[in-house]
Amino acid sequence: MLSVYAAAGIPEISPTSDLAQILGDALDGLLADGDILAVTSKIISKAEGRIVQAADREQAITDETVRVVATRAHPGGVTRIVENRLGMVAAAAGVDSSNTADGTVLLLPVDPDASAARLRAALQERFGIRIGIVITDTLGRAWREGQTDVTIGSSGVRLLDDLRGTLDSHGRRLDVTLPAVGDEIAAAADLVKGKSGGLPVAVVRGLGRLLDADAPGARVLIRRAEADMFRLGAAEAFAEGYAAGLAAAPEEAQ
Amino acid sequence: MLSVYAAAGIPEISPTSDLAQILGDALDGLLADGDILAVTSKIISKAEGRIVQAADREQAITDETVRVVATRAHPGGVTRIVENRLGMVAAAAGVDSSNTADGTVLLLPVDPDASAARLRAALQERFGIRIGIVITDTLGRAWREGQTDVTIGSSGVRLLDDLRGTLDSHGRRLDVTLPAVGDEIAAAADLVKGKSGGLPVAVVRGLGRLLDADAPGARVLIRRAEADMFRLGAAEAFAEGYAAGLAAAPEEAQ
Repeated sequence: MLSVYAAAGIPEISPTSDLAQILGDALDGLLADGDILAVTSKIISKAEGRIVQAADREQAITDETVRVVATRAHPGGVTRIVENRLGMVAAAAGVDSSNTADGTVLLLPVDPDASAARLRAALQERFGIRIGIVITDTLGRAWREGQTDVTIGSSGVRLLDDLRGTLDSHGRRLDVTLPAVGDEIAAAADLVKGKSGGLPVAVVRGLGRLLDADAPGARVLIRRAEADMFRLGAAEAFAEGYAAGLAAAPEEAQ
Repeated sequence: MLSVYAAAGIPEISPTSDLAQILGDALDGLLADGDILAVTSKIISKAEGRIVQAADREQAITDETVRVVATRAHPGGVTRIVENRLGMVAAAAGVDSSNTADGTVLLLPVDPDASAARLRAALQERFGIRIGIVITDTLGRAWREGQTDVTIGSSGVRLLDDLRGTLDSHGRRLDVTLPAVGDEIAAAADLVKGKSGGLPVAVVRGLGRLLDADAPGARVLIRRAEADMFRLGAAEAFAEGYAAGLAAAPEEAQ
């Protein structure tokens, strides 16, 4: 049995907010040993002052970008799908313009795993229980419409439930089965948090089996570009190939 | 508050099984008005006799394929990522070798939306309540490690929660926000169903707001190839570009 509920009563967060104190107050009496807290990255960013002027949005996206994966022009400008400094492939590098103060945009936290670890330590100490934390963001996907929430930072939670080598109901080995439970937790939490901004935190109960104080952070959910069959958009890869073909042609003709 | 639990006591399903009867018996007294049932596609396929000999696996994948998206050779053979006849982009076209009888593999249901509609009608009639059904499958993703469950068939559930045009907490319009709640429901259900095969059905409670008897099926979750920046693997697109560049070169040299 899994239960997920949104924490009520969390006020607007700003750089002067003590996030651990505020979340602790909102969760007082509600949190139990083994719970996983799913926290929207937006409130972490706000607490950490990751706010820039909207006029600087394009430069901010450039600064957060490690590698451009695909771009697409549309009437409002150019959408850039990029790998950002956290390794995530995200539209606009994860720079966010919704639920922000007028004239500003939000950058993702500098180090979401570290943010999660600090929050976890503070809440575990306050309540004397063992919990896990995932920090979530909303991402588009290849091939499928709409967005889902995924985990971009974490502390104390096993994010990949490695079943490789275990047996299925017919006694055969599950060779490639590696459920991305970290992203599934974020998705479940999104179903109760919603996008209006008023419910940035959800408590996920019933997954104590995934708690692991030594679990690595959210990078485990990211496929390295070298191993990724979709490391470039189709148009970008075609253009690279075209240029290479043009360059090679005279040589082949000799 | 969202709660998700796996239904116990569902036996191995075969083409002689009356799936609606079996699931109804397993859920008797457990199902409530507004619930959404998440059903693993595997048991639908088994009930519908979508079973082929393992020796015919490669041909079955070819038969289920509409369009090859990417291929990768590895020591065990070639993995084909393809768009299948349901529009999904999936490894091996969704042909499945786990939790199947020895020497056999499973094809996806012929029409998962229709399977969901039949099951929903039977269970609604038996229990006199209004429910939704999603049929789930496990898919890999671009850019991220591991797999998550998604919805490949449905009846009576709004799978995209269209927030475009609604306002965020600062009164600004959420222009691109389209949560893929259908896939998030499948992901939440996977957290309790697991992969060992013994728990193929989960009851998802607390999302009655997404019930809609007239909701379209799971195709709404699929991005058309023409609108997809990742309609081809990077290597495949590069190769197409290279060939085009080679072909164009003499012309440009003139």
